[in-house]
Amino acid sequence: PEQQRDDSGEERESPVQSLIKRYGLPLTGAETRSYTNHILSYDQGRRTPKWVAEHLSTEKLLGRADRRHCKFKPDPGVPELFTAHNEDYLGSGWSRGHMAPAADNKFSQQSMVETFYLSNIVPQNYENNAGFWNRLEMYCRELTERFSDVWVISGPLTLPQVGEDGKKTVSYQLIGKDDVAVPTHLYKVILAQKDPSAKVLALGAFVVPNAPIGFDHHLREYQVRLTELERISGLTFFPKVETQSLKNLCTVDSCELMDFKRFTLYITGRKVGGAKTLAKLDKIMVELKEAGITPDDYLVKLYLEKKQELLQKENPENKSG
Amino acid sequence: PEQQRDDSGEERESPVQSLIKRYGLPLTGAETRSYTNHILSYDQGRRTPKWVAEHLSTEKLLGRADRRHCKFKPDPGVPELFTAHNEDYLGSGWSRGHMAPAADNKFSQQSMVETFYLSNIVPQNYENNAGFWNRLEMYCRELTERFSDVWVISGPLTLPQVGEDGKKTVSYQLIGKDDVAVPTHLYKVILAQKDPSAKVLALGAFVVPNAPIGFDHHLREYQVRLTELERISGLTFFPKVETQSLKNLCTVDSCELMDFKRFTLYITGRKVGGAKTLAKLDKIMVELKEAGITPDDYLVKLYLEKKQELLQKENPENKSG
Ligand SMILES: [Mg+2]
Ligand SMILES: [Mg+2]
Repeated sequence: PEQQRDDSGEERESPVQSLIKRYGLPLTGAETRSYTNHILSYDQGRRTPKWVAEHLSTEKLLGRADRRHCKFKPDPGVPELFTAHNEDYLGSGWSRGHMAPAADNKFSQQSMVETFYLSNIVPQNYENNAGFWNRLEMYCRELTERFSDVWVISGPLTLPQVGEDGKKTVSYQLIGKDDVAVPTHLYKVILAQKDPSAKVLALGAFVVPNAPIGFDHHLREYQVRLTELERISGLTFFPKVETQSLKNLCTVDSCELMDFKRFTLYITGRKVGGAKTLAKLDKIMVELKEAGITPDDYLVKLYLEKKQELLQKENPENKSG
Repeated sequence: PEQQRDDSGEERESPVQSLIKRYGLPLTGAETRSYTNHILSYDQGRRTPKWVAEHLSTEKLLGRADRRHCKFKPDPGVPELFTAHNEDYLGSGWSRGHMAPAADNKFSQQSMVETFYLSNIVPQNYENNAGFWNRLEMYCRELTERFSDVWVISGPLTLPQVGEDGKKTVSYQLIGKDDVAVPTHLYKVILAQKDPSAKVLALGAFVVPNAPIGFDHHLREYQVRLTELERISGLTFFPKVETQSLKNLCTVDSCELMDFKRFTLYITGRKVGGAKTLAKLDKIMVELKEAGITPDDYLVKLYLEKKQELLQKENPENKSG
């Protein structure tokens, strides 16, 4: 590349370069976009993010922000020609999967609302979104109990398959009028620091298929070398980190996701909290029993509180009794 | 997007944003790269350019720069992890197709050399590269006879196919160790200005399949609306141009590529110039006759000159005769 710098060190344009630029160079729209608690680069051709970066800490996970006050919607900062719309996803067979998770933003309703912009969303397999990926997100939050600062970068990938003839082919679906690209895989890069003064950093990079993944699979199966993820994504992650000083997150920490029993109790707890009728509430508890899981004390307490609330709602005359 | 600006108009970072940025945000490598006579944005994930912009004028087409002194090679400015190498292309079944053509740089050996950096190259069908695309590049040069300034932006595309079930799927091959993406289509956007003072600009946008295209096809068949090309590429072209003032290039000019006879005479002229033996020279002229084309005066002159040169080379004793 021909780079001309004047004495001040600033780049100076040659007459040819300014002639080429006369009517403006193509805009890719890949510039960094900043939100309250995440930062991303958008892919205007695929109508999904390329990467989304966020910072997690115990304080950010505390608060009253509630996803019931959030709605998926086009990012007002993305040009209309290049944005996805809710209609692209609805009926497509694919869920709207957060890259920066809503639940990482309990401290700020505004920051949670912004994670529902479609610039932070990719078409994700429903079961993956509700299951393995959800558990991976929980693990990231759990890390804040053992690390003062956790940085997470998430995004979509379209990886090739190798045919019988040895040819590598990338193949992915487009959904909706806006041709939103469905990734074949999703990645997460996690960087964790023990305490603010600690020089040592732990890093884990994971590539997960955009498909259902059961409890028989371990997060470690999906760990990849950072350089390999950089090669396949075309991205350079954490450029200010000295890579030789990095520890493997799965050595320093467990990389164990929540197991079936704990996860089912957690999900049941959320269902109990959202139950609208006594019949629904009892059905939830029957299903748990059928799954062979005994409710723990916390879930029993949640259940009894909800039952009382619904009893009073369905029989208001019992209110004082 | 949350943007905070201080009184000077500069963007100010929130504490959350600077925390997210502490170890550096992912680098996409899509920044604009400037060369002597072209400017491009590189796609680190696909190991091809996203777009390449150049300016053409009569003066740049005159000169002694010669592609025989040029070699395809990795762009020294692209990180090793993200560059293509010649080995990726060799034996792949795909040619190394210039986006900014070498022949647009006769005025400068340095600028021609730079068009052979693999950052300006995509895997292109051989016949398309030597045929239709070559004729399209000639047409762009021919425009400098009728327009004082011509700007051309070229690049690769991976477009979807619609299956019988109505599903849209993008599918493309990767070649070589570096997984260089083979585009399904190529685009060119041409902006032409009659003379430096003319306010009126003519624009044509074309999307061409990366496959053989015969002389029975007209360039106009591949013309698309600029907005449609922007939608499918995710790029905004010529952002400083007022689009309402644009004329259709194919109305203002012919959009006629060189026909079979003229093109064959041109290609034969280049072959004659490169012939190394009398036997090769005569074979070239026989093939032309077999194609049913009579050499024009210019080709006859080239042929006779070359014949004389080769006669003297093969029979040096005739030198003074
Ligand atoms: Mg999710
Ligand atoms: Mg070519």
